[in-house]
Amino acid sequence: MMSTTEHDHDQPVDGLSNHGQAVTGSSDQNRPVDGRPGHLQAASPEVVAELVFELGDVVSLDPAVLTEHSRDTSRAEPAGLPAAVVQARSTADVQAALRWATTHRVPVSVRGAGTGVSGGALAYPGGLVISMHAMNRLLEIDAANRIAEVDPGIIIEQLDQAAAEHGLMYAPDPVSYQIATIGGTVATNAGGLRCLAHGVTRDAIAGLEVVLADGRIIRTGSRTRKNSTGYDLTGLFIGSEGTLGVVTKVIARLKPRPTGDPVTFQAQFPTMASAGTAVAAIMALPTTPELLELMDRNCIDIVQRHFPSAVAPGGAALLVGQTIGPDAHPQAETIVSTCRAAGALLAEAGDGAELLATRRMVNPALNAAGLALSCDVAVPPSRLAQMFERIETISTRTGYPVNTCAHAGDGNMHPAVLAGDDSVEEIDAAEHVLTLITEAALEMGGVISGEHGIGSLKTGMLAQQFDPDTLALQHELKAFFDPAGILSPGRAI
Amino acid sequence: MMSTTEHDHDQPVDGLSNHGQAVTGSSDQNRPVDGRPGHLQAASPEVVAELVFELGDVVSLDPAVLTEHSRDTSRAEPAGLPAAVVQARSTADVQAALRWATTHRVPVSVRGAGTGVSGGALAYPGGLVISMHAMNRLLEIDAANRIAEVDPGIIIEQLDQAAAEHGLMYAPDPVSYQIATIGGTVATNAGGLRCLAHGVTRDAIAGLEVVLADGRIIRTGSRTRKNSTGYDLTGLFIGSEGTLGVVTKVIARLKPRPTGDPVTFQAQFPTMASAGTAVAAIMALPTTPELLELMDRNCIDIVQRHFPSAVAPGGAALLVGQTIGPDAHPQAETIVSTCRAAGALLAEAGDGAELLATRRMVNPALNAAGLALSCDVAVPPSRLAQMFERIETISTRTGYPVNTCAHAGDGNMHPAVLAGDDSVEEIDAAEHVLTLITEAALEMGGVISGEHGIGSLKTGMLAQQFDPDTLALQHELKAFFDPAGILSPGRAI
Repeated sequence: MMSTTEHDHDQPVDGLSNHGQAVTGSSDQNRPVDGRPGHLQAASPEVVAELVFELGDVVSLDPAVLTEHSRDTSRAEPAGLPAAVVQARSTADVQAALRWATTHRVPVSVRGAGTGVSGGALAYPGGLVISMHAMNRLLEIDAANRIAEVDPGIIIEQLDQAAAEHGLMYAPDPVSYQIATIGGTVATNAGGLRCLAHGVTRDAIAGLEVVLADGRIIRTGSRTRKNSTGYDLTGLFIGSEGTLGVVTKVIARLKPRPTGDPVTFQAQFPTMASAGTAVAAIMALPTTPELLELMDRNCIDIVQRHFPSAVAPGGAALLVGQTIGPDAHPQAETIVSTCRAAGALLAEAGDGAELLATRRMVNPALNAAGLALSCDVAVPPSRLAQMFERIETISTRTGYPVNTCAHAGDGNMHPAVLAGDDSVEEIDAAEHVLTLITEAALEMGGVISGEHGIGSLKTGMLAQQFDPDTLALQHELKAFFDPAGILSPGRAI
Repeated sequence: MMSTTEHDHDQPVDGLSNHGQAVTGSSDQNRPVDGRPGHLQAASPEVVAELVFELGDVVSLDPAVLTEHSRDTSRAEPAGLPAAVVQARSTADVQAALRWATTHRVPVSVRGAGTGVSGGALAYPGGLVISMHAMNRLLEIDAANRIAEVDPGIIIEQLDQAAAEHGLMYAPDPVSYQIATIGGTVATNAGGLRCLAHGVTRDAIAGLEVVLADGRIIRTGSRTRKNSTGYDLTGLFIGSEGTLGVVTKVIARLKPRPTGDPVTFQAQFPTMASAGTAVAAIMALPTTPELLELMDRNCIDIVQRHFPSAVAPGGAALLVGQTIGPDAHPQAETIVSTCRAAGALLAEAGDGAELLATRRMVNPALNAAGLALSCDVAVPPSRLAQMFERIETISTRTGYPVNTCAHAGDGNMHPAVLAGDDSVEEIDAAEHVLTLITEAALEMGGVISGEHGIGSLKTGMLAQQFDPDTLALQHELKAFFDPAGILSPGRAI
């Protein structure tokens, strides 16, 4: 435990100290991520030649490919191009690449589809990108045991559709589920909309194959429903954002696909705080709805402005959701009554579907509106009303409108601030608003990331999330798994 | 990663190489557990005096207390008495005790109520026992967020009853739930009967406070529903059987308590294999029953012999279970139909309650019958029928009757063999039967422990469960967390 190498602990790798993230790839060119700690090397042409000799045409040096693989969907900007991209076709490819990187002290970033929003998959200048996108086979669906074995590059929707043929589903559904890979969601312990009822990625994974930094291959978990053998390495790798090893195989747990048509509902509230109270009351009901999403007035207006055909209901806050299964109708009616009791201006079951579509337009609308920076805090559901009041106070005090949408039932929200322009000053000011919001969440027992991960953009807030010994232990654990410090250095912890 | 200390890896600490466990504490005095690796010290009187000086009257040296705290509920026999027992009253007590043990290289075992059945809490001769039994406060029930914060020594039933006052429940219910502590179940990732529908201990824990071997205190997890910050240390400590740190606080997740009366059901089958087929079919239904337990003819007969008033239904296999919630009745009827389709001789809803009580008599009846050794394998549910056929073949070939009861829906079974007497030869022969059964489970993608943990009794099978690199990583991880190797050395991994 005392074997911490200094680099992990003391040297900030990524220059950005903020925790904000663009809702999409943005035009912010101002603050490149440093990305390569001093003890690591940019791979020289000779060193790259060794990799090519070893791995052949899975190694790409094409500048267009390097550029394409250098960033994710956050506003974080890489400091320079990687030296090479390995488009892995097999576990052996990953093993060879990591052995090479450890030998030559080359920093490695790992990439699925590049849909991350925290800068976790950003390339290191002169480093290696390992892309898992081409390792995308569906290896097996064991319907009887509700298990799927897949390559990490499989697209979430593809796995879910394959499961649907057996009456099953793969539950985690991040907004990007149509393009995101399961490996990427394992890296961030991604959530989504329906994880409210079905659990997040960690709840949906039974086992992994992982290549360690030194090239060893290990296998975690099992296909059984219960397992009390050995340490829970599966859970440890999930959410470790590529810092402990590279996942090369995933054993996923499937669930019975709910039958029948979903019932949607909506409720409008005079204030966000009253909507927060309603959410807490809904979450205290014995049965949890499948979806429960919240938008503030600013989000609704911005969607309406950019997509005039979108529905624009009244009120300061809009709660939309969906129930499913044999009791979907009575459950939705109970939720409607609960909303009325909490002070809803209007609450009805049966026509939230269009509004759920409106919810999905929030991110595109924010991006169309300018440089939107957002965060990903989560609080215990009972604190939502209080949290929304704090956001309003912060907005008033700073003069920045805050656009808040939330996976409300999970207490996970993405408040977004539009920077006036892409100057450092404006971005700093917008980020300051998000910092205040994040600090408010921490005060309420919340966390600085509910589903996006820390990546390279949020490391500056870690010391507020964790006490010093707990954070130190995580740095030591990282150094234990990766003594050379090559795997996503400076990120996640 | 290369910092493995030899002792963890190479030196077997516990003399027992078998994986069997008595259904209760047994009279087997033949094979003491060695229990103290060479690099560790028996605490000398001077060293013990330091501990007493530091901690005062929480340290007990009374031989009766030492004896009482030297074993668990397994048949494993400690090689000698511990030097001292610390009956911890606070996190600070645990911290001081671990610092003392690390300084003086004294082996430590950690104990809740001593209900473990794998020899995980066995005292080391001349070692320290830390008992968490007196740290048993219910600190908070946060009903709105379905969270309880408790000391590790709280009894499971007590927590569950406190939750019931808020319409909530703490779901994991090992058979010993009326006497077992939550800390002990965290150590083993314990299951139980209703975990079929509600999940095991790892699914029910939101966060922990842990004292590391060097005395540092860390805090894992959060009270939020979603969390993508840092490494999942919560999951890592759960199931680590006291080898990585000592849990001093538990944040538990509560669930809504199902409403209405449960509906019970039973089905009798001509063969265990046909019962296994029925279980697989039931587990393929969209809704899982709350309980689904299976007993073979031998178990039924042995219960009937020792508790003549117990119900003794016909057939080679008896499946009993219970549904709960608003759809309990139609769900039970569907299960009855499913059983009939799988070849049940008799299947009916509405009177399994007595039979569930019979199920709970299996362990006492086996213990009354003699020296019963059992195992704890789990297989994917679809392999149950095949597994039961293999057990029958093994029984026939070895000439030993096997008594199998199972948390059937989870594929978790406890086949038990009665040793003819408590001679080494007879125990070896009985254990050989269990080894053959465990190997059969491994061939089917199963695990050597579904809910009891490895403890000191099952370490001999680990090399068949894990590939060499995966097992080596776990030993290295243990050495990382506990460089002096004082925490439950030689156990769990």
